[in-house]
Amino acid sequence: MAESPAPLIGGIDAGGTTFKCAVAAPDGRLLATLRVPVTTPETTIGACVDFFRWEMKERGTRLNVLGIASFGPIDVDPASPDYGTLYATPKPGWAGTRLSARFFSALGVPVILDTDVNGALAAEVDRGAARGLSSAAYITVGTGIGASLWSSGAFIGKPSHPEFGHIRVERHPADREFAGVCPFHGDCLEGLASAPAIARRFGPPETLPADHPAWEIEAFYLAQACAVLFYTGRPQRILLGGGVMQAEGLVPKVRAAFGHLLSGYLGLTDGDIEALIQRPALGEDAGLFGGVTLARQAMANSDWTA
Amino acid sequence: MAESPAPLIGGIDAGGTTFKCAVAAPDGRLLATLRVPVTTPETTIGACVDFFRWEMKERGTRLNVLGIASFGPIDVDPASPDYGTLYATPKPGWAGTRLSARFFSALGVPVILDTDVNGALAAEVDRGAARGLSSAAYITVGTGIGASLWSSGAFIGKPSHPEFGHIRVERHPADREFAGVCPFHGDCLEGLASAPAIARRFGPPETLPADHPAWEIEAFYLAQACAVLFYTGRPQRILLGGGVMQAEGLVPKVRAAFGHLLSGYLGLTDGDIEALIQRPALGEDAGLFGGVTLARQAMANSDWTA
Repeated sequence: MAESPAPLIGGIDAGGTTFKCAVAAPDGRLLATLRVPVTTPETTIGACVDFFRWEMKERGTRLNVLGIASFGPIDVDPASPDYGTLYATPKPGWAGTRLSARFFSALGVPVILDTDVNGALAAEVDRGAARGLSSAAYITVGTGIGASLWSSGAFIGKPSHPEFGHIRVERHPADREFAGVCPFHGDCLEGLASAPAIARRFGPPETLPADHPAWEIEAFYLAQACAVLFYTGRPQRILLGGGVMQAEGLVPKVRAAFGHLLSGYLGLTDGDIEALIQRPALGEDAGLFGGVTLARQAMANSDWTA
Repeated sequence: MAESPAPLIGGIDAGGTTFKCAVAAPDGRLLATLRVPVTTPETTIGACVDFFRWEMKERGTRLNVLGIASFGPIDVDPASPDYGTLYATPKPGWAGTRLSARFFSALGVPVILDTDVNGALAAEVDRGAARGLSSAAYITVGTGIGASLWSSGAFIGKPSHPEFGHIRVERHPADREFAGVCPFHGDCLEGLASAPAIARRFGPPETLPADHPAWEIEAFYLAQACAVLFYTGRPQRILLGGGVMQAEGLVPKVRAAFGHLLSGYLGLTDGDIEALIQRPALGEDAGLFGGVTLARQAMANSDWTA
């Protein structure tokens, strides 16, 4: 009798505009992927479910576990009755959607869900720019600013998650008047350095040339974010991801401002800072690898058998 | 034949002015203690070693492990050849002292060494104001400012430790002129809110009445420190210890300023903030329990047998 194929792993990068799905081998290799535009929860989730069902049927096997790296705000406490449920979100129809529960009902497999930035960092630790390290952090700079801090094999902030975008930062001398865009704090990090904050005073970030003065200001704020993470958690690497970080030359500017902030403390050289502050390695598929990695980690930490 | 007594645990609170030693039962109960004033390394360490040897002889048993919660700066990486060695310190004769190695040579037992603030937090989690929680932080405000962050059973920042005193904080409106006392950064948190920083502009902290304006300024900075820890690590409790925190009424002022900073974000009530920000419970003996707790944790995490 032929050996039946090994059970596979499902991963979802649940973004605000696109859900990406993947079926992966037990070692994390992606076998098949699908992109689903975000419309209503019914249509979006339905299309994902159909993909996993079809793939399993075609391959004559089953899913072992599904990992979701999700947009938020979302409940990430596995002990909560609302685990995997989206909180208030401006996305029409999605507030209160029980993301984990719906995939669990439809597919009948354990569903592991975490924030998108925790997923991205998990993947970078597993196979990307933080591979082999014992601690690392990830800051994502886009519509919002979020962070993930990982140390001794666990994410910090469980069963909740960091709200790092809301730390206060010192004003850049050339940026004293802008009120900031955070509805709660005005000029917190997110209020001053997110994509909407850049757009509000300088124009859409993707339209600004590399020598636009906006980037010195942005680097000044992001360097403070790096310094806070460094002084608080001492990660061995800080990865800067998200749409805003695609700006050419921004990472070197952040490194320079970070070095200036440290003022020689702890004796960090330029080379140390270059090794500390880096771009993620996984690019477009980071979130997808994130979902798969969360699922694989959960399996490794549990007693589930294949 | 009478059962021989169980091996015991040694703990040291290695402070800058006093070393406190304890012999403890396997459950952490203190059986005997000694205070040794800090003079030269030879005399101070020698007196501690004599205490442990004498206690073991009297009790007809042996030490299983020694835990040290130490002043710094000190190497806390167990994999480093300089583990437990003091770096440059203004304390005469102590720079370069191999604290762990000397106790190991003299007593022949494994020596676990960590920062004093990690020790204090370990003890508070074990039997104090953070008992039963899955995450907690400790900020010590004295000659310097340090912090410890503990989550999912491990300290953050290993194999190094946080340098939390050096985060930048926003200036209090009534404190714009003071240059700060940090030799590296001037007006970082430690530069503005440590005991020497208070003394420099207002006089020795212990002489200032509870209604002195210094305390509003101090609370403003410490609230920012709490907010950074909260946003970054989401600890379930933040303990404020160290000499400066003995000032009457300071903790309620920090809570009020913290609530003001959050501006309603995450819906924290005054009751939530009171539960979040607290004084440590162990008082004078926190460091001693710290040494003992570090030793007990190391034993629990290892394969050593009694």
